[in-house]
Amino acid sequence: MKRKIQIGVIGSGADLKYSSEVEKSAFELGRLIAKSKNITVFGAEKDYDSLSTAASRGAKQQGGLTVGVTYGVKKDIWDKDGNTDIIIVTGLERGGGREFVLVNSCDVIISVSGGSGTLTEIAIGYQLNIPIVALIGTGGWTDKLVGTFLDSRKRLKILSARTPAEAVNMAIKVVNK
Amino acid sequence: MKRKIQIGVIGSGADLKYSSEVEKSAFELGRLIAKSKNITVFGAEKDYDSLSTAASRGAKQQGGLTVGVTYGVKKDIWDKDGNTDIIIVTGLERGGGREFVLVNSCDVIISVSGGSGTLTEIAIGYQLNIPIVALIGTGGWTDKLVGTFLDSRKRLKILSARTPAEAVNMAIKVVNK
Amino acid sequence: MKRKIQIGVIGSGADLKYSSEVEKSAFELGRLIAKSKNITVFGAEKDYDSLSTAASRGAKQQGGLTVGVTYGVKKDIWDKDGNTDIIIVTGLERGGGREFVLVNSCDVIISVSGGSGTLTEIAIGYQLNIPIVALIGTGGWTDKLVGTFLDSRKRLKILSARTPAEAVNMAIKVVNK
Amino acid sequence: MKRKIQIGVIGSGADLKYSSEVEKSAFELGRLIAKSKNITVFGAEKDYDSLSTAASRGAKQQGGLTVGVTYGVKKDIWDKDGNTDIIIVTGLERGGGREFVLVNSCDVIISVSGGSGTLTEIAIGYQLNIPIVALIGTGGWTDKLVGTFLDSRKRLKILSARTPAEAVNMAIKVVNK
Repeated sequence: MKRKIQIGVIGSGADLKYSSEVEKSAFELGRLIAKSKNITVFGAEKDYDSLSTAASRGAKQQGGLTVGVTYGVKKDIWDKDGNTDIIIVTGLERGGGREFVLVNSCDVIISVSGGSGTLTEIAIGYQLNIPIVALIGTGGWTDKLVGTFLDSRKRLKILSARTPAEAVNMAIKVVNK
Repeated sequence: MKRKIQIGVIGSGADLKYSSEVEKSAFELGRLIAKSKNITVFGAEKDYDSLSTAASRGAKQQGGLTVGVTYGVKKDIWDKDGNTDIIIVTGLERGGGREFVLVNSCDVIISVSGGSGTLTEIAIGYQLNIPIVALIGTGGWTDKLVGTFLDSRKRLKILSARTPAEAVNMAIKVVNK
Repeated sequence: MKRKIQIGVIGSGADLKYSSEVEKSAFELGRLIAKSKNITVFGAEKDYDSLSTAASRGAKQQGGLTVGVTYGVKKDIWDKDGNTDIIIVTGLERGGGREFVLVNSCDVIISVSGGSGTLTEIAIGYQLNIPIVALIGTGGWTDKLVGTFLDSRKRLKILSARTPAEAVNMAIKVVNK
Repeated sequence: MKRKIQIGVIGSGADLKYSSEVEKSAFELGRLIAKSKNITVFGAEKDYDSLSTAASRGAKQQGGLTVGVTYGVKKDIWDKDGNTDIIIVTGLERGGGREFVLVNSCDVIISVSGGSGTLTEIAIGYQLNIPIVALIGTGGWTDKLVGTFLDSRKRLKILSARTPAEAVNMAIKVVNK
């Protein structure tokens, strides 16, 4: 593949009150994706921060390329600090539609903690045969689903990584395989 | 509400090899929705049968109204027996996109067994504040998620019904509430 | 085809200030679709009336079945008078996305007058090989495009009807052909 | 705006048999967008070339950044030469859905020649208040619609540019205004 790998980082929204430690992990994921010269794809919210957005900050600190996928019809995303290189406005609502375009546009996904939105994204990834790496120890659906198949079709087992570095390496490896 | 209630029946595709007993439950759900004079919304596949489609057969046997929500750009759905009154062609792919329109168009959802597609639909329903009734004892994600909230936002608890009759009554009640 | 024909009526929104005569034509289209025992599909707005919605009133007066296709994530459409039997909530925004699901779900479309939204719908219909009948004399893009192909691919010529009765008959005929 | 401007180049597909001169203009548009340090957004087909894809080749020759927006669920786009930096897979079908995400994601659009797909995109742009610059003399809907409003709402007049250089300058200017 000549293209850089498009790695989605998905995880809880700020309303789920994740710890600063988990946020640092998400930031570190973005930083390491950038360091590997690959692309960070994230879900850009319009009302609040998220672990996904934290990854974009990490990527940007390291000079990486970031793609924010948002909902609705305007580019008025929450991140106004210049951490988003490209905004994709899906015209689909949040809660499944926007998430579908986000996941569908990734070569691989790394999940961190996560509530119902992340669950939706993991389930979409599984259905679309897009590999998912779970950063364990971060709680939420990431920890609940790691190591499992989502049904008896056994399409893709959700992979397990213990650190951001391991997660990014694993994501790159699974795509290049 | 002057409209009839739009009740989605969601569940496993035929490739997940559900039992004939579970299929009968799905059929019965459709029959009882029709008997209550409400509308059965189902996911119309183009390649195989599903519990959702079984519900449309039940609804039709009872003279009910059925709406099949499909993917792609043509109306060539698997059910060609005249059990579908209205076909909605979403232009969105299967695996999250079509499911988003399906769930979003329901007033309430009843889940039966279910693999990753059903999981996606339950997670979407939760995010969109569309009540979900789980028909327990049917296996799959229905049994795994019944009685839970999908995250600490605690939007909607997934309701539990033991029989098709209880599920349909509960679905109607939760919408009229 | 065992299904009833799904006939979309598309046209200007109320902000385009159409005449009461044109509105009557749209109403009459819905009435005649209902009389032919077929289904009226229309674009349900959340903020104002439209020719499309007028068709649903006509269909309902005649006891027909109506399907309103709307945008966003809620069923709070402008028509609250019980003229909508089924609401499809696409989760796609207005201005092309919702219109895509609407047109894609029709077997044939009848256009009345029309601004940019109608133009979008006609262009989508052409691309999806969904026949379009233009009710001439109603102005807008309907009158501008009647009798033409939209490009040198010459997929479908936009058909011309002089009266609502001729339009509905033509729509049914072109689908059954 | 800290972001680079996302400039969509839209136009005919190769099946419309555009001249090599028009193709050169599309290529030149991409080259000049890249030279201006902005981003070229294009519609990535999976079966054939297009003026939109020609723009991505121009952009890449000049070392620019390109975003290809495609349909379906896989990244198997026609351009396999490494001219696409980022692929967005919309999960929406071609013929209105994919085009909706494409246009919605642009800050401004430049149109070149164009059949029904381009017409759809121009109509979507108009509805979403995304400025459109028509490169005149290239035929198709670009020449037919230049200088007009698409309806009496008079949202946006379609701007006129005589050369690729004028078109790119005008596109940048209208966004920064």
